[in-house]
Amino acid sequence: MNNIRAVVFDVFGTVVDWRTSIADAVAPLIRGLDLEVDPDHFADLWRRRYQPAMAEIREGRREFTRLDTLHRENLEQVLLELGVSEADRDEADLAAINSAWHKLTPWPDVVPALGRLKQGYIIAPMSNANISMMIDISKHAQLPWDAILGAEVVGAYKPAPQAYTRTADVLGIASHQICLVAAHNYDLEAARSCGWMTAFVPRRSEHGPNQTSDLVPESDWDFIADDFSNLAAQLGC
Amino acid sequence: MNNIRAVVFDVFGTVVDWRTSIADAVAPLIRGLDLEVDPDHFADLWRRRYQPAMAEIREGRREFTRLDTLHRENLEQVLLELGVSEADRDEADLAAINSAWHKLTPWPDVVPALGRLKQGYIIAPMSNANISMMIDISKHAQLPWDAILGAEVVGAYKPAPQAYTRTADVLGIASHQICLVAAHNYDLEAARSCGWMTAFVPRRSEHGPNQTSDLVPESDWDFIADDFSNLAAQLGC
Repeated sequence: MNNIRAVVFDVFGTVVDWRTSIADAVAPLIRGLDLEVDPDHFADLWRRRYQPAMAEIREGRREFTRLDTLHRENLEQVLLELGVSEADRDEADLAAINSAWHKLTPWPDVVPALGRLKQGYIIAPMSNANISMMIDISKHAQLPWDAILGAEVVGAYKPAPQAYTRTADVLGIASHQICLVAAHNYDLEAARSCGWMTAFVPRRSEHGPNQTSDLVPESDWDFIADDFSNLAAQLGC
Repeated sequence: MNNIRAVVFDVFGTVVDWRTSIADAVAPLIRGLDLEVDPDHFADLWRRRYQPAMAEIREGRREFTRLDTLHRENLEQVLLELGVSEADRDEADLAAINSAWHKLTPWPDVVPALGRLKQGYIIAPMSNANISMMIDISKHAQLPWDAILGAEVVGAYKPAPQAYTRTADVLGIASHQICLVAAHNYDLEAARSCGWMTAFVPRRSEHGPNQTSDLVPESDWDFIADDFSNLAAQLGC
């Protein structure tokens, strides 16, 4: 049917609904800090600092640093932005808030479809999350991966080409036999540039009700599916 | 019951019966090469070169090189030893023989016990195998790991201390909350030196009927179990 041997997945947004999960997890914690901020907005403020933090590493100004550490630094910046000074916060609160990224809820179509895809392919996350974050997310959500791949395994953050080329090398599989599944056109564009197959699954509420990005496929990706169930069917599972 | 959060496993010998698996897999291939060598003996000759090859890396004389590559180099040496010159062998045969390490049969107690242990702990292989080898072994044997850890993830071969300390760092778990399961006393000794918990499960026929090593625990390991089922029970699963 096809020559694909491994199907690897972007996770934040594609596999899990990080925004709702983070908002739900931090709501009681930010109330405890007497912060009058909407939890969804808090999640957005935090996530807004995600790409710039990784850009420092992608562009060679900083050595590879795992995402838990970047999240923590970004959290401290968000709290400062919201008027919480260093003196007003304590280590336990910060650690509790930061750990919210270790328990994220998958979109409802994910788990059954991964079980089907695992029968026909090697399946693995290829996320910018570090390994322990992805283990915790996966155990919490019961994601049946064959391995945890991603940024920490290869020492590079997507969409840097090394993230894809080194992952192919680790898998020992030719680029054209690996398919990236993502809800983000930029990620698929980078994968395609490295010779990978590409599958787009839109997640139109990843960023909430007013999302404007990644509502539609912006190229002729090899597979375009409404959800993971339909993707599994297209991949013969 | 205990403070352990992650249970990680040596694989060759502890989880899988590599010797029987390799002998069975290579038997038709070495017949094809007109080699009059017992397949068990072939497996032993090959495995005999395993520790010396990794020692080059552990002792800093060679940069980290994944096990598939070391196996391949060792295979070429074994064939020379058996009188097969470079001119008498072809690439396809060598690749087929080398890939035997990607399909190894687990001991019969392994799979059900891992399923039980996965309910209470993070479970992962911590093998000197590279990632793709371990993915293939695990998929073939249906080993339900939460992640693939091991030498290639941390760039160090057991029993070098970095193999254990970097694995703990990647897991984000304190050393005393990680337990290594192994059929080899030297591996447990190295883990204990790094502050890890230790579990010994003897595999008295790993090296065939005349095995002389690792028949008994050589120290007061934290857990000593006849098989994985008993180990799971001792760990409360």
